[in-house]
Amino acid sequence: MEKIERIGVSLEKELLSAFDKLIAKQGYQNRSEAIRDLVRQQLNAERLSDSAAKAVAAVCVVYNHHATKLTEKLIDLQHSHILEVISSLHVHLDEDDCLEVIVLRGRVGQINRMGESILSMKGVKLGRVNLLATVPS
Amino acid sequence: MEKIERIGVSLEKELLSAFDKLIAKQGYQNRSEAIRDLVRQQLNAERLSDSAAKAVAAVCVVYNHHATKLTEKLIDLQHSHILEVISSLHVHLDEDDCLEVIVLRGRVGQINRMGESILSMKGVKLGRVNLLATVPS
Amino acid sequence: MEKIERIGVSLEKELLSAFDKLIAKQGYQNRSEAIRDLVRQQLNAERLSDSAAKAVAAVCVVYNHHATKLTEKLIDLQHSHILEVISSLHVHLDEDDCLEVIVLRGRVGQINRMGESILSMKGVKLGRVNLLATVPS
Amino acid sequence: MEKIERIGVSLEKELLSAFDKLIAKQGYQNRSEAIRDLVRQQLNAERLSDSAAKAVAAVCVVYNHHATKLTEKLIDLQHSHILEVISSLHVHLDEDDCLEVIVLRGRVGQINRMGESILSMKGVKLGRVNLLATVPS
Repeated sequence: MEKIERIGVSLEKELLSAFDKLIAKQGYQNRSEAIRDLVRQQLNAERLSDSAAKAVAAVCVVYNHHATKLTEKLIDLQHSHILEVISSLHVHLDEDDCLEVIVLRGRVGQINRMGESILSMKGVKLGRVNLLATVPS
Repeated sequence: MEKIERIGVSLEKELLSAFDKLIAKQGYQNRSEAIRDLVRQQLNAERLSDSAAKAVAAVCVVYNHHATKLTEKLIDLQHSHILEVISSLHVHLDEDDCLEVIVLRGRVGQINRMGESILSMKGVKLGRVNLLATVPS
Repeated sequence: MEKIERIGVSLEKELLSAFDKLIAKQGYQNRSEAIRDLVRQQLNAERLSDSAAKAVAAVCVVYNHHATKLTEKLIDLQHSHILEVISSLHVHLDEDDCLEVIVLRGRVGQINRMGESILSMKGVKLGRVNLLATVPS
Repeated sequence: MEKIERIGVSLEKELLSAFDKLIAKQGYQNRSEAIRDLVRQQLNAERLSDSAAKAVAAVCVVYNHHATKLTEKLIDLQHSHILEVISSLHVHLDEDDCLEVIVLRGRVGQINRMGESILSMKGVKLGRVNLLATVPS
């Protein structure tokens, strides 16, 4: 069980009321929940600026599965980085295109390099490396 | 078979040489490939600014699977949006935390709203909605 | 005088201690100050997604002042949009290059269009449109 | 005079026509100009990921000029960092609020730290550190 602390925060009335409206729209049930998420996002951004920090990434790529051997190359790459690649998900978008989400785990710098080498493969049309820091709390 | 066109582009010698170095590091095999990717990213960004554009999203969330009923709520939500949710991938990060990647399909505005309602769920620690436009080319 | 309200926020002990470390490094004197800034940034991001919202922008461009007539064209453009352009700042970077920061005021959509037309001018090497929402709070 | 090189780029017909439409809307007069800008942005992003790279930043802050002594503190800070601060621009937004754009010059890491210390000052409501790499071409 994690220990919970309760702190007091002062805000201008007007600022608070605008925030309450926003988080209601987003679906939050209370302010603590919403503020905790802001705090975690801020810490996440800070951690990801350190290339040695531990992280997971969802590398999303859209590619044409008719592209010569891209599918095999993607699978080869994943097996040759067996320690970093955890899993992947393949979705058929239309007759030609697929979305593949490849989940990597490792250090920020290492994951970024592997992500880049995936995005630069011939046949990959569009993609992004989406990082999340994996740390206690 | 898609028709290919060949265009000419003028660049300063110094700029070109810096670009060649960068794309070699990223793993590109030739300039056309790298420039096509820049063009596609630019079009993607433009499309995603239109809330009615068609897109797919990989919603990535890190959550504590001990959180009361979050796992069930996530599954319920996915089934109640059966048209938008294509698939999901679940990864065990450590004793407490999971990464779930939920692939959504729909209009940008609609996907963003559903993404936000996932990120705001009690127990979700960290997350992001990662959008890619799905359009020809 | 703006009215101040005081709210209570619950956070995991570990999360709070990581946040305290981060904000000390950033130079914050207390948590309320840091949390208010997170809340304001979140509201700012939300407002900027509405193309009719009021905003200011600092359009930053790096350009070669030897480029044929770019300096005059930039000045002309600013005078022809006298209602949107508030002010500008010119910095000499080296023998060839200048940085110009042009402050615009207006609706998000309008500012973005004008910013784009500046960035696309012949001779502009690099630039960005940086928006901030201007709203009470 | 910089040397210009001309290269050939192959693109799918459909991709090219979507790109032509986009850049016409943005105000570009030809494709080379638009592609050069994409290349420069990409190199800029790469350089800014190196904390030792040379850069300029426009730090934009919105603050209440009634806030106790913030104006003086901002001026003090700028004078104590005389080598990094090049210039600043002050805009009156309404009765209470000002926008100040402070142009810094130095290494990416150093500029970011100084930018953060400005953003965290008591009385600053909203702000951003906007970096541009300053390198040949």
